Amino acid sequence: MRKPFKLKNKVYIAASASAAGRDEAAGPLGDLFDVTDTADNRFGEDTWEKAESAMQRLALDAALRRAGIGAEEIDALFAGDLLDQCVSSNYAHAESGIPYLGLYGACSTAAEGMILASLACEAGLGTCAAVTSSHFCSAERQFRFPLEYGGQRTPTSQWTVTAAGAFIISRERRAGGVLPRVTEIMPGRIVDRGISDLSNMGAAMAPAAADTLLGYFESGGEPRDFDLIVTGDLGREGSDILRDLCAASGLDIAPRHADCGLMIFDGCSDKHAGGSGCGCSAAVMASDVLKNVRNGTLCNVLFVGTGALMSPLTVNQGASIPGIAHLVHITGEEV
Amino acid sequence: MRKPFKLKNKVYIAASASAAGRDEAAGPLGDLFDVTDTADNRFGEDTWEKAESAMQRLALDAALRRAGIGAEEIDALFAGDLLDQCVSSNYAHAESGIPYLGLYGACSTAAEGMILASLACEAGLGTCAAVTSSHFCSAERQFRFPLEYGGQRTPTSQWTVTAAGAFIISRERRAGGVLPRVTEIMPGRIVDRGISDLSNMGAAMAPAAADTLLGYFESGGEPRDFDLIVTGDLGREGSDILRDLCAASGLDIAPRHADCGLMIFDGCSDKHAGGSGCGCSAAVMASDVLKNVRNGTLCNVLFVGTGALMSPLTVNQGASIPGIAHLVHITGEEV
Repeated sequence: MRKPFKLKNKVYIAASASAAGRDEAAGPLGDLFDVTDTADNRFGEDTWEKAESAMQRLALDAALRRAGIGAEEIDALFAGDLLDQCVSSNYAHAESGIPYLGLYGACSTAAEGMILASLACEAGLGTCAAVTSSHFCSAERQFRFPLEYGGQRTPTSQWTVTAAGAFIISRERRAGGVLPRVTEIMPGRIVDRGISDLSNMGAAMAPAAADTLLGYFESGGEPRDFDLIVTGDLGREGSDILRDLCAASGLDIAPRHADCGLMIFDGCSDKHAGGSGCGCSAAVMASDVLKNVRNGTLCNVLFVGTGALMSPLTVNQGASIPGIAHLVHITGEEV
Repeated sequence: MRKPFKLKNKVYIAASASAAGRDEAAGPLGDLFDVTDTADNRFGEDTWEKAESAMQRLALDAALRRAGIGAEEIDALFAGDLLDQCVSSNYAHAESGIPYLGLYGACSTAAEGMILASLACEAGLGTCAAVTSSHFCSAERQFRFPLEYGGQRTPTSQWTVTAAGAFIISRERRAGGVLPRVTEIMPGRIVDRGISDLSNMGAAMAPAAADTLLGYFESGGEPRDFDLIVTGDLGREGSDILRDLCAASGLDIAPRHADCGLMIFDGCSDKHAGGSGCGCSAAVMASDVLKNVRNGTLCNVLFVGTGALMSPLTVNQGASIPGIAHLVHITGEEV
């Protein structure tokens, strides 16, 4: 499918919510997150993995409350994360009783979950949810170095965001005012341009984002039709590469482009090229972007969730890092 | 959703195909697999992970050929596997150019992929595909012991199947005769009954299979309405537990029940409680079961794909093993 799929039905993001850690709470979007742990990022748990599960539950619970529905009204929950076998998602929802469909899209999981929840609603399911998370401490020791090692970070490295974001997606109009509506979806293709540096995920993902955006605009329209084209977590390095790649193909996205990885840590020190992780775009979309759709500041948004699909094992085996980017077109609509 | 979702449109499994390793080829279903490597299970690759990727490509290519379509006609590919970050799927399809949605459902991935591909077709996408795989050698060293260690296996342990299965799912009727049609789907809930033995996955998954089957039959019908109720990979231990759990709730599935993990290694030595892994139910469904639907031997089948959602890390942290079971109702229909 090199063209976007237009939803015939009116599918809304009825509510969204986020949970975030200390550094994220101290950043420019800190006031917008629904739940934060400004003490120690443990969310009351004794392992980092359980803390990440707790964030998913907190974000989903907050989104359900905001939508005014109970867990038993969710027909399908789409969830995933960065950890081996997606355990922070699996264990987060083991007692929820919600029908559960596990995803692995790396940092693109928020967009993948929105796409699949929207397709499920389009197919006739009543209400679905999508949730995802990442935690700096569970990810860092799994993908790079033990935390205690205190490894130096390169300038292109990104900081795995400690956060979760949840979205309630439904064909029913559960609230008055303006609601974000999912009008088009476009799953991405895997693109591998030979980057093999685990500390430069932006460069690995940017070609996939360019592939998806170029594919999207092949079927018409131009970047200035949108109020915002927001990528998942390319960071500084990846954002520059994406703009260059698009410009080289005659597509000038720069005036409309923003990146969740840059937004969440804008002005923060020691975050190098910016934020990354499933929780990055999930929390930024669930808080800042969708809030601005609801209040009318943004009417027409392209969300391009980006992910890097390697594992430490494949990198150690010498393989390069494949990237992917899934697109969700969101408009604000009076209901 | 404690009731199954009925598809309004006619969604067919237009074609299916499988690839399998040496032991699987020597088993009772060996002649039914489309591609086998009876030499060394490497499928021409130099790592087990790449061999697993190769199996996914071989199975998908064979399914596409059988459906008479090219990769460019696939609107979305749903793929996943057991490996950390699902890398055998990610790398298998990095050059295919097919829009890609990654899944993590552990051994339930074949059923999860069928569900999501069917929902996507119901929503209006033209043709989708689902593919999954497992490889004994990539899984064993990741989840249990290094192969060279030669660990003793307990009687309840299951043998990760070296195989892949692919399904082309479409609303278009691409072939004459009888085609398998997906009429109902029911994503499962996560169920954790406290099993923590990595060598007894059947016991960990059986309660989830019981939960899904009991939920399904709550909305009417009974097991004898079906020609076959086939679970993914509960093996001997898990199958016994499932039948007991269902019987204790007044549901007698025994006369109709079969298990892919028992079917694939029936009569084989040294496979202990039977087969497991994403490739187990995928290959058995793609070969034996769907062939029998197409030739009219089976007209009405419930497929219940089962998965265990732990990781080695969570087990080492003392957590028990959550299970899940997704249901797909398949009927044979003259087209």
